Amino acid sequence: KCTQTRRLYGGMVYQHGGDERSVVIELNSPKKRAHTVTVLFILTCVLVYVTLLEETPQDTTYNTKRGIVASILVFLCFGVTQAKDGPFTRPHPAYWRFWLCVSVVYELFLIFVLFQTVRDGRQFMKYIDPKLGVALPERDYGGNCLIYDPGNTTDPWHNIWDKMDGFVPAHFLGWYIKTLVIRDWWMCMIISVMFEFLEYSLEHQLPNFSECWWDHWIMDVLVCNGLGIYAGMKTLGWLSMKPYQWQGLWNIPTYKGKIKRMAFQFTPYSWVKFEWKPASNLRRWLAVLGIIFMFLLAELNTFYLKFVLWMPPEHYLVLLRLVFFVNVGGVAMREIYDFMDDPKFYRKLGQQAWLVAAITVTEFLIVVKYDPRTIMLPIPFFVTQCWFLGIVLILSWTLWRFFIREVGVGARLCLFSYVAVVCRWCHHHPPPYLLWIQNGSMFSSTESIHLMMRVVFGSAVSYYYPLPVFLFCFLTSHSGLCLFSLSDCSSIRKGFDQ
Amino acid sequence: KCTQTRRLYGGMVYQHGGDERSVVIELNSPKKRAHTVTVLFILTCVLVYVTLLEETPQDTTYNTKRGIVASILVFLCFGVTQAKDGPFTRPHPAYWRFWLCVSVVYELFLIFVLFQTVRDGRQFMKYIDPKLGVALPERDYGGNCLIYDPGNTTDPWHNIWDKMDGFVPAHFLGWYIKTLVIRDWWMCMIISVMFEFLEYSLEHQLPNFSECWWDHWIMDVLVCNGLGIYAGMKTLGWLSMKPYQWQGLWNIPTYKGKIKRMAFQFTPYSWVKFEWKPASNLRRWLAVLGIIFMFLLAELNTFYLKFVLWMPPEHYLVLLRLVFFVNVGGVAMREIYDFMDDPKFYRKLGQQAWLVAAITVTEFLIVVKYDPRTIMLPIPFFVTQCWFLGIVLILSWTLWRFFIREVGVGARLCLFSYVAVVCRWCHHHPPPYLLWIQNGSMFSSTESIHLMMRVVFGSAVSYYYPLPVFLFCFLTSHSGLCLFSLSDCSSIRKGFDQ
Repeated sequence: KCTQTRRLYGGMVYQHGGDERSVVIELNSPKKRAHTVTVLFILTCVLVYVTLLEETPQDTTYNTKRGIVASILVFLCFGVTQAKDGPFTRPHPAYWRFWLCVSVVYELFLIFVLFQTVRDGRQFMKYIDPKLGVALPERDYGGNCLIYDPGNTTDPWHNIWDKMDGFVPAHFLGWYIKTLVIRDWWMCMIISVMFEFLEYSLEHQLPNFSECWWDHWIMDVLVCNGLGIYAGMKTLGWLSMKPYQWQGLWNIPTYKGKIKRMAFQFTPYSWVKFEWKPASNLRRWLAVLGIIFMFLLAELNTFYLKFVLWMPPEHYLVLLRLVFFVNVGGVAMREIYDFMDDPKFYRKLGQQAWLVAAITVTEFLIVVKYDPRTIMLPIPFFVTQCWFLGIVLILSWTLWRFFIREVGVGARLCLFSYVAVVCRWCHHHPPPYLLWIQNGSMFSSTESIHLMMRVVFGSAVSYYYPLPVFLFCFLTSHSGLCLFSLSDCSSIRKGFDQ
Repeated sequence: KCTQTRRLYGGMVYQHGGDERSVVIELNSPKKRAHTVTVLFILTCVLVYVTLLEETPQDTTYNTKRGIVASILVFLCFGVTQAKDGPFTRPHPAYWRFWLCVSVVYELFLIFVLFQTVRDGRQFMKYIDPKLGVALPERDYGGNCLIYDPGNTTDPWHNIWDKMDGFVPAHFLGWYIKTLVIRDWWMCMIISVMFEFLEYSLEHQLPNFSECWWDHWIMDVLVCNGLGIYAGMKTLGWLSMKPYQWQGLWNIPTYKGKIKRMAFQFTPYSWVKFEWKPASNLRRWLAVLGIIFMFLLAELNTFYLKFVLWMPPEHYLVLLRLVFFVNVGGVAMREIYDFMDDPKFYRKLGQQAWLVAAITVTEFLIVVKYDPRTIMLPIPFFVTQCWFLGIVLILSWTLWRFFIREVGVGARLCLFSYVAVVCRWCHHHPPPYLLWIQNGSMFSSTESIHLMMRVVFGSAVSYYYPLPVFLFCFLTSHSGLCLFSLSDCSSIRKGFDQ
């Protein structure tokens, strides 16, 4: 009556024969105890001791801090014992529940910081570490890029040795872990190369993005990232080949076997090979693009966030954030994969993926709010053109692959005539984003952000209701209304007419 | 291969034939969508609008408040879409997830308040409502208790009409809901009567506990509570007899049927009749005692908490707290029942039960910390004696039922001789709690709380390790060490020798 279809979350998925409802079976080991009551009892004892038997200090600031820390600890106690389990079970589900709760706390902290004024927010960091809240000194990132420097007689290769610092193993280790998270060679390489492009594009904003060409392409992409990805792929191969037969520690007879089993507790319970297959349908394609976008955004946030919050790069909070992302990133990626892989079973985006997305977005919003000037430094014309070309290429391929290739000849003719009409119209009435690109400043004022949002909204509407939008655009194109912004843009037109 | 054993949480429990592992099957309706991505998208849009497009106010206090409120709202967004589901599904699981998240927020708020000084904590309430943080005026609760007052010529029954205020329907409604929560006639009646005893015992601490005898027993216990419990039991009968066959709204042909189905969405999906069976084993007996104790504690907290935090009784926060408890109490009680009922399946105490227990304890700790003087007002001698008698009776019955009745004649003799030794010892060296009771002040100083905790700790140790404790007590009883406190209590002995 029940037939097993696939393994999942350390349990099994069964499918009822003629029944359309999907059925998830969790196998609970009878030996595991949750210690919910024990944790509650210990918590109560600690609270009684700290609040009733110890003298309360009279310092309000200190008490406020202590109250907040205590609230966070109680939340962690609750979460570690009671939160919903994620996909990972090794070394212990409580470990992953702990990181889930840490993400909640981190996200709430970010939201709080986001709602402060810039000055207050930076000073607020003083509560965490009194050394923070001080403007960072300007650093000089200039330097010459000669691989062989004949001017330096003692060691002409000194430029290369200078780059061989702690960042080389850090890059290697980082990409090793990222490969284990993404589990796909192509996506890793694309992200690795894209990030170097981003560094090129944004070095006018953050000076520490400026590196020598051989530092970008040879040291970073080839040596550090490349070796990290290679080692990661080898490990992935081992993990997917490894037999996953688990038996309890107490059932293993030999002493050596027991030790081995204890070490293996830190390897996964089972392994899912990710097959992203981005070109298989539009949903997967957009999802893969979204994942790459969010990944790059999270990487940029590392640099921008410490810049706007005045964090020295060697501060322990910067390192903690990376440790945090290493732990939650793997869970989030697995949950996104499950969400994409089997929409019938997983109608919910996993909790950790939800939180990581929210955290990345909130971090970015903090960056935008705290230092709009740096973010909106006009992008050099050359860089804008390159990105525009890239986006157009991706869009055209998307259109070709998922819309045009699928439809018949008549519909293709229709589409081409639509594009021709739009192009003709654009030639006479350029829509605002073309104007921005021509002017070389995409984010020149709050007004253009407003318009930008209308464009995004308009595109979304036109995706879901293409025919009405097409008709609307066609009918109103001669009366001078904007094509995508779906509202009057007289100010833009005025600017154009002048 | 799979055999259905019982229905549970709107799903089914299957048991593998020869396999000892228990298996839980959840049936996910394919039509329900979780809207996780939608919520994330809307949240992002709102954050972008509020933080980037609106001008940030320059007022630090206002921003801090707004930041905290925003953090709470984001947490609710996360929790309502992603938190673990509880036992209830009607009218919608998200409703119960919402109240779970509210409990987390409330508990963290309580923890924060607990860590402040008394003055700061009361002033902190000003941030919630500027009218709070002001000492309450003393009220006069005196009055005569004549049912027929011949001194009042216009209306000799005026004392009765005076009591017929808004509290009569409130009491009735409260006990109606409490009956639906507890689902047991005996437990309801015991809690209802016990609470009147508590009012008698504590009227020297909180003057609004003092009522006329007929108000206690006739108006409260018989009329309001009794009728509420009766109505609740009738509803319980209807709920447990009702057929639970659900079909989707769209499958019902008639219009009247659809309306009826929509109304029934607010009745439970399935119904579990609680059978507490307190006398069946020691674990259940202690659990039922614990439930009654926590229930009464939560009821007392209602009165004490508003007293120590200077909340006027008609303040909306007091009402909100009651609404909160109505919503979470039912879930918590069901989870406790499941936890007790089937320890093999439910090794975890449910999340809502965990939180309600933590909240009740934290509220009590706040009361003790904020007004130790009121709590430690010496209990009248007569009241102490009554409680002492009650506790001794319960203890003796417990001992008889679960320890003495089970063992053979020899063991019984052993036990009796042990009790005799203890009694003889107590006669010569009374343990501290007897002294306190004799002095009529159980909580006279912090020192006695210290000792009290040692007593509790000693009892716990002696439950798990009875033989060593017995030997220890027997060997040390002549050298003057205390029986239960397990540490020197020279100060007490000094006081006794004088």
